Amino acid sequence: MKAKGPTSLTAPDRAESLGALLRRPYTRLQAHVYGVLAASGFPEIRPAHSVVFRHILPEGSRLVELADLAGMTKQSMASLVDYLAIHGYVSVEPDPHDGRAKRVKLTTQGERFVAAALAASKAAEDTLAVALGRSAIQDLRRLLASVDLALAE
Amino acid sequence: MKAKGPTSLTAPDRAESLGALLRRPYTRLQAHVYGVLAASGFPEIRPAHSVVFRHILPEGSRLVELADLAGMTKQSMASLVDYLAIHGYVSVEPDPHDGRAKRVKLTTQGERFVAAALAASKAAEDTLAVALGRSAIQDLRRLLASVDLALAE
Repeated sequence: MKAKGPTSLTAPDRAESLGALLRRPYTRLQAHVYGVLAASGFPEIRPAHSVVFRHILPEGSRLVELADLAGMTKQSMASLVDYLAIHGYVSVEPDPHDGRAKRVKLTTQGERFVAAALAASKAAEDTLAVALGRSAIQDLRRLLASVDLALAE
Repeated sequence: MKAKGPTSLTAPDRAESLGALLRRPYTRLQAHVYGVLAASGFPEIRPAHSVVFRHILPEGSRLVELADLAGMTKQSMASLVDYLAIHGYVSVEPDPHDGRAKRVKLTTQGERFVAAALAASKAAEDTLAVALGRSAIQDLRRLLASVDLALAE
């Protein structure tokens, strides 16, 4: 992604679904941000791990809660969490309220990653605002919020 | 999601990242479409399986290719594919060009699902166009394509 002046807006392929049009820039944005993060000290983290960092609570979250929030099976979430624990981003301990359940918590390294991810995401959006123009980004934000609201009804 | 006349556009929370604003309506759209599909004869399929249906080729795809395209580990993709094979949506056979590799192919039921998913997605977008107005959806499509293009550079 390079910063440059406002570009002419291209005509999207009408045959493409709105779902694909929403997904593609999100996937690209994520790939860009995780590329920046890999180059700045977090090479182990892939976009697939974002569901853990997005949903985990400051006091820690139960594995089954993380799985539910991510719409994943408990096994799939356990696999992501194990990987992050091995690489020092989360700790996994028995839940204090339920010894059979597991509680997942960010380590200091995990907190560092979250802060870096927020900063990289903000920087990408700023570069995008330069490329497309601030008013286009504002229009996009407004339209996305409206779509989200309409779908929530 | 209910169809209704054009709504007033709400002010999005400025503190929210563009990534989150792109992801949320996509996730909601996906949840809506998969809800419709579950009610119309495909209750086993969850949004997590969409990465298989999205990337699989008519002649079949190798497991490792599907994993690469989805940005997942081979094990995670194998778990999704096994589930879909058990429920009759894909078949898994040795690759004719490489006996050690596996080739994944849609079954007739898998093809029926893909056709139903495309139709449900189109119906959701039509309902959304009624709720927000056609010109808002056109603006959104144009802006999303521009963001995608800017990020691809």
